[in-house]
Amino acid sequence: MSDEQSYHMSPEDFRQYGRAVVDWIADYYQQIESFPVLSQSLPGQIRALLPSHPPLEGESFDTILNDVHKIIVPGVTHWQSPNFFAFFPANASGPSILGEMLSAGLGVQGMLWTTSPACTELETHVLDWLVEMLGLPEKFKSSGAGGGVIQDTASSATLCALLAARERATEFQSNRQGCNGRLVAYASTQAHSSVEKAVRIAGLGSDNLRLIEVDNEFAMRPDVLARAIEQDRRDGRIPCFVCATVGTTSSNAIDPVAEIGQICREESLWLHVDAAMSGTAAVCPEFRHIHTGVELADSYSFNPHKWMFTNFDCDCFYVADRAGLIKTLSVLPEYLRNQATESGAVFDYRDWHIPLGRRFRSLKLWFVIRHYGVEGLRYHIRRHVELAQDLALWIRESVQFELAVFPPLNLVCFRHKGGDTINCQLLDRLNRSGQLYLTHTALNGQYTLRLCVGQTYTKARHVAEAWRLIQEMAKICVQGA
Amino acid sequence: MSDEQSYHMSPEDFRQYGRAVVDWIADYYQQIESFPVLSQSLPGQIRALLPSHPPLEGESFDTILNDVHKIIVPGVTHWQSPNFFAFFPANASGPSILGEMLSAGLGVQGMLWTTSPACTELETHVLDWLVEMLGLPEKFKSSGAGGGVIQDTASSATLCALLAARERATEFQSNRQGCNGRLVAYASTQAHSSVEKAVRIAGLGSDNLRLIEVDNEFAMRPDVLARAIEQDRRDGRIPCFVCATVGTTSSNAIDPVAEIGQICREESLWLHVDAAMSGTAAVCPEFRHIHTGVELADSYSFNPHKWMFTNFDCDCFYVADRAGLIKTLSVLPEYLRNQATESGAVFDYRDWHIPLGRRFRSLKLWFVIRHYGVEGLRYHIRRHVELAQDLALWIRESVQFELAVFPPLNLVCFRHKGGDTINCQLLDRLNRSGQLYLTHTALNGQYTLRLCVGQTYTKARHVAEAWRLIQEMAKICVQGA
Repeated sequence: MSDEQSYHMSPEDFRQYGRAVVDWIADYYQQIESFPVLSQSLPGQIRALLPSHPPLEGESFDTILNDVHKIIVPGVTHWQSPNFFAFFPANASGPSILGEMLSAGLGVQGMLWTTSPACTELETHVLDWLVEMLGLPEKFKSSGAGGGVIQDTASSATLCALLAARERATEFQSNRQGCNGRLVAYASTQAHSSVEKAVRIAGLGSDNLRLIEVDNEFAMRPDVLARAIEQDRRDGRIPCFVCATVGTTSSNAIDPVAEIGQICREESLWLHVDAAMSGTAAVCPEFRHIHTGVELADSYSFNPHKWMFTNFDCDCFYVADRAGLIKTLSVLPEYLRNQATESGAVFDYRDWHIPLGRRFRSLKLWFVIRHYGVEGLRYHIRRHVELAQDLALWIRESVQFELAVFPPLNLVCFRHKGGDTINCQLLDRLNRSGQLYLTHTALNGQYTLRLCVGQTYTKARHVAEAWRLIQEMAKICVQGA
Repeated sequence: MSDEQSYHMSPEDFRQYGRAVVDWIADYYQQIESFPVLSQSLPGQIRALLPSHPPLEGESFDTILNDVHKIIVPGVTHWQSPNFFAFFPANASGPSILGEMLSAGLGVQGMLWTTSPACTELETHVLDWLVEMLGLPEKFKSSGAGGGVIQDTASSATLCALLAARERATEFQSNRQGCNGRLVAYASTQAHSSVEKAVRIAGLGSDNLRLIEVDNEFAMRPDVLARAIEQDRRDGRIPCFVCATVGTTSSNAIDPVAEIGQICREESLWLHVDAAMSGTAAVCPEFRHIHTGVELADSYSFNPHKWMFTNFDCDCFYVADRAGLIKTLSVLPEYLRNQATESGAVFDYRDWHIPLGRRFRSLKLWFVIRHYGVEGLRYHIRRHVELAQDLALWIRESVQFELAVFPPLNLVCFRHKGGDTINCQLLDRLNRSGQLYLTHTALNGQYTLRLCVGQTYTKARHVAEAWRLIQEMAKICVQGA
């Protein structure tokens, strides 16, 4: 590299600063419980510390790393803290971080098989492994007509499923002629907001999304679904897509996929199963019942980046008929043509999702599965569920708190019996303490606290301490009321 | 961590293996020119080396890293090789890889401001810097009504722009009622395939995409655009969106944005400018003319992950009216409500793109800008353009080869005068040699070779050697014909 001037980082500097970053990360995890879980920053506070103009001359990496510590860390909400119980987790782990590092180093862009065969083939292979690991139907394996692909998020997976459904229902005419306002999609009132977002994006319109009533456990009512489909047909509309959820965001409810699937078969509707958070549980045979009926689905997705210790972003999306998905999403310009594609012997994953380019994301997933082994993953998933169930029992036995619903897996939805205002204050006080981070939802119109036990490093002591804090802070809120 | 059993990687192991990965990456870059640029793998060859079933027990990281070398590397097409001249680059660099490492270590998911204020604020800030760095219009800065956001790819940016255009044209009715088959979009025949993909996804239908004729330099003809809009209005259609390209994929053509923008203003059409590859050139004042007319655009995007030495994925997407974009893409369920959002004082970037979750991608961009400084970036961009222009002159002077068009920047489109078959054979032979990687396109119906000088580490000697090889291999092809 000596034949010309260069502003690039030298290999020696890369080694030195690379080691510094590795140590920085290791130190970060060793100190993580000392940071407030929810960032205490105020709006604009981070920006105020940054120079108004970009630097004309380069700066040393020491300066940059120092600023990370000084400026960035106080503005971080610590998703990797064992006291993070908010939303659903977005877990990292040692082997996954190393996988991301390697992926960044290789700098591969796997839009076509030929632009890095290993990027495509490792992905196909590991996604086939996961079919076996989760006990999913064989039809999702690449050896048959189906196959899996890594998407960024479950939102994008749902959108791709909806698009494939839309095309199947219109015999691939809507791709050409556009939507006509008659296609209808279905999901429960508890389905993730990404279903509505997808329905809007895909041109169906949210007026054509039916949010189906749920039962007492917040699961979709198949009888109501069947009636809604019937009504839409009578009204001259074209039902095309149902999204069933295995583990809703609000309360972890599990829709009756088998019954919904039966309806979809009879009515020729595309069934997508969104198991973003809870799918991972099926790695344990005793939780595999959550997937009952998935054999009736046309597509399925779950997020290793939530509960399988694999860095965001990593959503696994499966279809039973990959040809339909590819036909929906493929546009082949001359500049992407190549022999491997023409041969038909390879997958070009660009045709399986919205973006063209793609990172080498299967590396981290491969690292995680190999580092933990199936047994290691099972151990930690079981432990999280046990801890959540313990907490649920403590809450059920408490005088001041109640469960909104008994947790099917590892999400505990509960509330103080003092009403919405107390619960709202309690949440705020807990999060401002910096000692843990919870979020809320509304169930049956009531303000409800959500505590998800799923962070990679959460152990018994963190859950016990969380419960202690919740009770202590509740007392203060009640006294102040 | 001693209070329970654990399968997690210990902090000590993480430090040790982290250093091993850093050294692995540094070694990789030092050996990179010894690998065949285009992987020589055959379909299925990588998978055949992987075990059919996932491991039940965990494996050591040494074994895993060894398999990366043995199984993965032969299946890698080396995008970071200085002899990579294919497609457009997807560049990495030292500071960017370190930024990705840190982002993976922090494991932040920045869907809302509150889920990591630094993730949102650094992004807004660095994207404001880039407005200044590229001489883009002030209206794209967050200080006014606009602002920038990092998307995964330009494909997604184009889709978001189209969706916002669709909603503006229908007074936000298509989100609710769905598309009606009357909306029309426009781009040149040379626009990226992602425009057609977006038009399909968004429910407009590709029959409603007008691919506008280009001039002799492959740039959109504004007169033809104006007539197409007029015709569509006469036919009762609703023109809503124009995508102009600054640096097309086939030939790097630069559409006349000012004239197109004038038409869009008069006709109230949304103008999106796709500068995915070439936008970076504007960091040099002498190339800033490529952005003439961008002040008339409603949205703009370019990819630091192509030519600004920032790891994929990193597309910067700007809008002049962020409220319109947010209104198009926002769905707010109870479980995402929080005080910061309600206050209106913050950006929640989940409302600026398709996915909900998002990585901390601005870190790598910040690291790159600070490490190189604006001057360092300018140096390397200038050098790439110079090298491409040198090559273009050599080709112009050659007896056997001709330019398809004189390169505006750093993409050289050329062909052997012997016709399509010779060129096709030449490309194949060059790529099979492993010594460099080129791709092709069709221009005026002729098979055309594309050589993009833009890889981070490409220097004069790589371009000179590429030209020598091209000439040498062409001789062999001609002799064999």
